[in-house]
Amino acid sequence: MFLSKRMLGYGQESSVIREIFEYGLKRKQQIGDENVFDFSIGNPNIPTHKQVTEKIKELVNTIPPEKLHGYTSGPGAPTTKKAIANYLNKTFSCDAKSDLIYITSGAAAALAITFKAFLNEDDEVITFAPFFPDYKVFVESTNAKLIALKTQPENFLPDFDLLEKAINPKTKIVLINSPNNPTGVIYSEKTIQKLAELLKKKENEYGHPIFLVSDEPYREISYGKDVPFVTHYYKNSIVIYSFSKSLSLAGERIGYILVSTKAKNADMVYKTICGAGRALGYVCASSMFQRVIEDCIGLTSDFSIYEKNRNLLYEHLIKIGFNCVYPDGAFYLFMESPIADAEEFCEKARDFELYFVPSNSFGHPGFVRIGYCVSTDQIEKSLDSFTKLANYYQLSEIT
Amino acid sequence: MFLSKRMLGYGQESSVIREIFEYGLKRKQQIGDENVFDFSIGNPNIPTHKQVTEKIKELVNTIPPEKLHGYTSGPGAPTTKKAIANYLNKTFSCDAKSDLIYITSGAAAALAITFKAFLNEDDEVITFAPFFPDYKVFVESTNAKLIALKTQPENFLPDFDLLEKAINPKTKIVLINSPNNPTGVIYSEKTIQKLAELLKKKENEYGHPIFLVSDEPYREISYGKDVPFVTHYYKNSIVIYSFSKSLSLAGERIGYILVSTKAKNADMVYKTICGAGRALGYVCASSMFQRVIEDCIGLTSDFSIYEKNRNLLYEHLIKIGFNCVYPDGAFYLFMESPIADAEEFCEKARDFELYFVPSNSFGHPGFVRIGYCVSTDQIEKSLDSFTKLANYYQLSEIT
Repeated sequence: MFLSKRMLGYGQESSVIREIFEYGLKRKQQIGDENVFDFSIGNPNIPTHKQVTEKIKELVNTIPPEKLHGYTSGPGAPTTKKAIANYLNKTFSCDAKSDLIYITSGAAAALAITFKAFLNEDDEVITFAPFFPDYKVFVESTNAKLIALKTQPENFLPDFDLLEKAINPKTKIVLINSPNNPTGVIYSEKTIQKLAELLKKKENEYGHPIFLVSDEPYREISYGKDVPFVTHYYKNSIVIYSFSKSLSLAGERIGYILVSTKAKNADMVYKTICGAGRALGYVCASSMFQRVIEDCIGLTSDFSIYEKNRNLLYEHLIKIGFNCVYPDGAFYLFMESPIADAEEFCEKARDFELYFVPSNSFGHPGFVRIGYCVSTDQIEKSLDSFTKLANYYQLSEIT
Repeated sequence: MFLSKRMLGYGQESSVIREIFEYGLKRKQQIGDENVFDFSIGNPNIPTHKQVTEKIKELVNTIPPEKLHGYTSGPGAPTTKKAIANYLNKTFSCDAKSDLIYITSGAAAALAITFKAFLNEDDEVITFAPFFPDYKVFVESTNAKLIALKTQPENFLPDFDLLEKAINPKTKIVLINSPNNPTGVIYSEKTIQKLAELLKKKENEYGHPIFLVSDEPYREISYGKDVPFVTHYYKNSIVIYSFSKSLSLAGERIGYILVSTKAKNADMVYKTICGAGRALGYVCASSMFQRVIEDCIGLTSDFSIYEKNRNLLYEHLIKIGFNCVYPDGAFYLFMESPIADAEEFCEKARDFELYFVPSNSFGHPGFVRIGYCVSTDQIEKSLDSFTKLANYYQLSEIT
């Protein structure tokens, strides 16, 4: 084999999510955007904050292009890093340091870089199923292992007994994602505290750090619910963030890694992250969008649309007989498939021009992920198709 | 060690180039931009083509932001890929296929992804010294080896005897870079033909493909000289391209990988590249800049400025007694250090506010790289400092 077999595998399986998305795109070209109900991908379909657009115009009008579009420092422009640190400290009363912020091309890059920085062959990362499928790809491509633990079936929260048993001397990282993709579940302060206690206990037992990596691209999409900031609860923590969802900038690839100021050898961890970024071919995040973020940090797209979508869709799905856990945050509904084979269910849904993702690749079969980050108009138009789908499976309407 | 030692190493050594660049930035803040002659980095200091700026304005004014800034397909927007293929076919009379073009976040990403796609542990990549330092980082972080061969001292072209001896059954890739960073040398058609013949011979000998990877971010910066397009000469070839230099967009991270249509199992190679991109955390290149490229492909910044800079600086350096090979392309002068220790020479140059990079990290000690991608005004102002530097080393003026 003159290629890497593993990489070929990743390319061939491709992302199931992206494949469905691509199919939906084709279908849109055939029958029109308005007739395809594509809930497959986390591509925000609401506009960014208008200040983002205004800032782009201002930048191209006022900054010489060779400065605007030139390289920044690898870990990010110092002024942007400072703006992020200031915002975090003001918002979460934490002690973020701009010297421990590494600006990345989105959360995927941030995760891939963080894993590359920490993981040696046979190291282990523990996460909780269902989980974002590419976690496995990022971890395994460093030759380490992803251990996905079952969660409590009624709320998809960590099962601490299972976690305690799973942690072992090879455990380098515990990876959480709250608000969660795909379930929409938010970890409460109590959950984070319990997690922190257990990790501290295990760190003492093994005499080496176990890092808590918190992937938070949906942090602000919590519809009023509190999302605890992990650096308050656990020293060896790293926050992964992206502006993809908060500012509907998924295609511009901008986010960051924050190493907690209290982490063991924080500066060395940061240096290693810089090295890993370099090794993976990341030179800097978009210089123009770094300037945009510097100006727009703290702003968000209008999430009231998502909230309306969630309520509309959740209520309808429950009413027509589907099961799903109420999603506190993010913009996904994790719905139980009415038949055991969620892939077959997704295939059938296509007959009604409904596109969503079977949960198999999320490590938790029997469900589908429905991304409601679309226009409310699309949600409203899709309800009838969902009813037809429910009828096809003879689900009983709750009356 | 709870971190990857290798990544920590990459982070600590950091890029020598970037460190000098950062130092230059600080110095500019202290004594003013106009008094610091920073030739350390390949950061184009000439504006992008004005159509790029116009296109950005048009895009933000006419495309709904949720479409403009949303995800594209991982390998790139189909329309952008098509535009690139059309441009290549028109310009180089080749048979590029858009299905074999993978749009990347610049050339560094393209190289890291390509190596990740091909290389297994202990595989070998051969390149020619001096070479861009991060080649080594990208290759080694896949656990493969970079073999850097000495070149002919009078012109920095490959020594084919050395190459023939170096190729062995572990050789997966031969990596070239023309116009070359740091020497400015362009490989002629004859050189590419000779290289292709040797590789074909070795492929037959070993019964497996050896890929020619051609890193071409300076393709258009050739001041009228021909740069042969490798897919014409060798089947198993891959072209790495970036718009960083051609359109002065280094900070926006956009480029591509082209797999030759004639390559063995081209589709499979492409799929593996897609898998490697995914594994390294690349989701898509900037969606907005993909649209910009679709519109602006074929345009370039005004390279007459670089040509003027090259002539001014080269003539002055030769006149005051420095040695360097005449650079055909790119925007670098590779100048011999008047003392054996090029690092010490660079340190001394800083006393005259001249910042350039010692060649040690390029795998060819005793030289410095001078990037003349700055304004002509800066070049003119710097000449006096170069003269002082020459005088310090008592170089004799050629009269």
